Amino acid sequence: MTPIVAVVGGGQLARMMAGPATALGLTLRVLVESHEAAAALPAHQTVVGLPTDPDAVARLLAHPRPDALTWEHEHIPAEVFDAAAAAGVPARPGLHALLYAQDKIEMRTRMDALGLPNPAWRHVETEADVEDFLAVHGGAGVLKTARGGYDGKGVRVISSPFEAADWLRAAADGGPRVLLEEKVPFDRELAVLVARRPSGEMRAWPTVESIQRAGVCSEVIAPAPGLPEALEAETAEIAEAVAAGLEVTGVLAVELFLAGDRILVNELAMRPHNSGHWTIDGAVTSQFEQHLRAVLDLPLGDTSPTAPWTVMANVLGGARTRLTDALAEVDDAGARIQLYGKGVRAGRKVGHVNVSAATRDEAYSRAVTAAAIVRDGGQA
Amino acid sequence: MTPIVAVVGGGQLARMMAGPATALGLTLRVLVESHEAAAALPAHQTVVGLPTDPDAVARLLAHPRPDALTWEHEHIPAEVFDAAAAAGVPARPGLHALLYAQDKIEMRTRMDALGLPNPAWRHVETEADVEDFLAVHGGAGVLKTARGGYDGKGVRVISSPFEAADWLRAAADGGPRVLLEEKVPFDRELAVLVARRPSGEMRAWPTVESIQRAGVCSEVIAPAPGLPEALEAETAEIAEAVAAGLEVTGVLAVELFLAGDRILVNELAMRPHNSGHWTIDGAVTSQFEQHLRAVLDLPLGDTSPTAPWTVMANVLGGARTRLTDALAEVDDAGARIQLYGKGVRAGRKVGHVNVSAATRDEAYSRAVTAAAIVRDGGQA
Repeated sequence: MTPIVAVVGGGQLARMMAGPATALGLTLRVLVESHEAAAALPAHQTVVGLPTDPDAVARLLAHPRPDALTWEHEHIPAEVFDAAAAAGVPARPGLHALLYAQDKIEMRTRMDALGLPNPAWRHVETEADVEDFLAVHGGAGVLKTARGGYDGKGVRVISSPFEAADWLRAAADGGPRVLLEEKVPFDRELAVLVARRPSGEMRAWPTVESIQRAGVCSEVIAPAPGLPEALEAETAEIAEAVAAGLEVTGVLAVELFLAGDRILVNELAMRPHNSGHWTIDGAVTSQFEQHLRAVLDLPLGDTSPTAPWTVMANVLGGARTRLTDALAEVDDAGARIQLYGKGVRAGRKVGHVNVSAATRDEAYSRAVTAAAIVRDGGQA
Repeated sequence: MTPIVAVVGGGQLARMMAGPATALGLTLRVLVESHEAAAALPAHQTVVGLPTDPDAVARLLAHPRPDALTWEHEHIPAEVFDAAAAAGVPARPGLHALLYAQDKIEMRTRMDALGLPNPAWRHVETEADVEDFLAVHGGAGVLKTARGGYDGKGVRVISSPFEAADWLRAAADGGPRVLLEEKVPFDRELAVLVARRPSGEMRAWPTVESIQRAGVCSEVIAPAPGLPEALEAETAEIAEAVAAGLEVTGVLAVELFLAGDRILVNELAMRPHNSGHWTIDGAVTSQFEQHLRAVLDLPLGDTSPTAPWTVMANVLGGARTRLTDALAEVDDAGARIQLYGKGVRAGRKVGHVNVSAATRDEAYSRAVTAAAIVRDGGQA
């Protein structure tokens, strides 16, 4: 029997697990929302349904039984963990860990308990709570819903309690809790990815810089340019402390703020992450292969980069469906392309390109050029 | 609509097209012999049946109509080409080209007509034909059935007409025709792969050396060690002359004998080929991605190697089904693994490993070691 990995979620992260699953001789069974999902075609076995549907989850866990169950997003109901336990299928990462990627108040509380560097923050329940916090933190803060946010959603910069009123009311009515964080005057956004297997082995990739536009990751530069060795060591230590402290299994992404020489934890994701797409073409072992290895408790692969610089650029909001012209131009830029097989919608991530080069400027400018070529063709 | 490529044949060659099809946002629809076929799980859409079954072929060509139909082996009945023409689906390579990969007498005749270097050969119908040929070619020759052979099957070294009697009788009874070739005292076996698209663009990878054991490819060294520039140019010219002369579309593999400084055409294959598996990890564009680009008439990708040396070693006859120990050792050897998801049978190709390194010796020894680790684990 070849090992079977079951994945909840049919987006591009599950899609990009298919190639390495094939190479390792694994079977990838994916719960997709619909036949049009990005992962539906490449998945080795497809179950159509939502994670909130017990029948769909039962089919995902059915005979032959998966060797591990994992996720490509954090919105996993607790009932799925119960079903996995009842079926004898290890859920990786487990709910005890995933909780901290699902809920930002739980995450901040736990980071504090682990002694890891958080921005100042508090759980806010009233406008008075907000007013107090703003008063001691420069009059502005970042308001977040504890659950349900992604790509800039569920996040709002505020400078008066009034701007928090709707979310506070929703929380009081049983909606997601709300937290307020210090508005960190950061210089750069970094991310560090580490994989951890149940037996404890961990491997981190080099820390990268993430360039955001309008709250969405636009480019990732690997490694993070000019990061002093001491800070590189600190980011790796933070990632390993989170992975070990929270007993994460699989890939963990820790997004960080760099403000001067102060590093602060921004967000956690427990799955392959946009900031790790560069590893497909720029590291010996990609984050997708590593995630599969980790959740199966197989030895982790080498995370060394294969080029001095690799830059990933997202293709947002459009992509050519006919590649005739784009491919030659993308090739000329030395870019490797990944399309996600998605319909086009404004601002949606429909693919990415990776460029490796000897210098950062060359990798960056060619990646941005190639991404624009793929994107702009959508109008043709 | 994303472009659709339909493939006849469910072995490892179709399997390894799935990853690049996903990256390029294509849909890969594969006609597999059974649900256990190597390509059945990774294929994006699976049609189960044989190419001799008109219903199965009709399902392969059904709406939404494929943009191209291609093959991962040469055993394609003429009726499949008729069905493709009737459905308006371009068959690439076409029957006019594939004929020369199907039938060695047609191939030798055509190579002679193109002025390309053949071993001495003749179509033999009687024992007297055999006796005459052996008399002028040193008393020994290589007897081949014109059709149906692969991996050493349908090939026999003979030194007397008696040894040809059964195949000659079979041919007289309507079986495959038989040819006899000079037994070339070759020093090395080379292979050169080139891709050609319908519009005429061609790109070749560097010529490689193929190490055979018992008639089966065991390792491939890229590039072919110590090949003088003039010979490298000659092999590339031969491949391009064949591809253009026969109007091949897709990947063409030309297997060659090197005897002193004399190069002779041995065999042709019109599909991705074992001698090109090194390109997955050792070239900018793999033969599988290039084949898809070529049959869709998309621009061809860069065929440059990404390392000074890459060695591919086949895993023959067995493979670990549990990778726990093997993976760490294979990683230590710096090898990238591809398993084909096949049941184990003596001598069967069940996977391969690629190792890139700065020196040939290092790449070779590590690849052979890694392949042995994967294979020997089959006994555990």
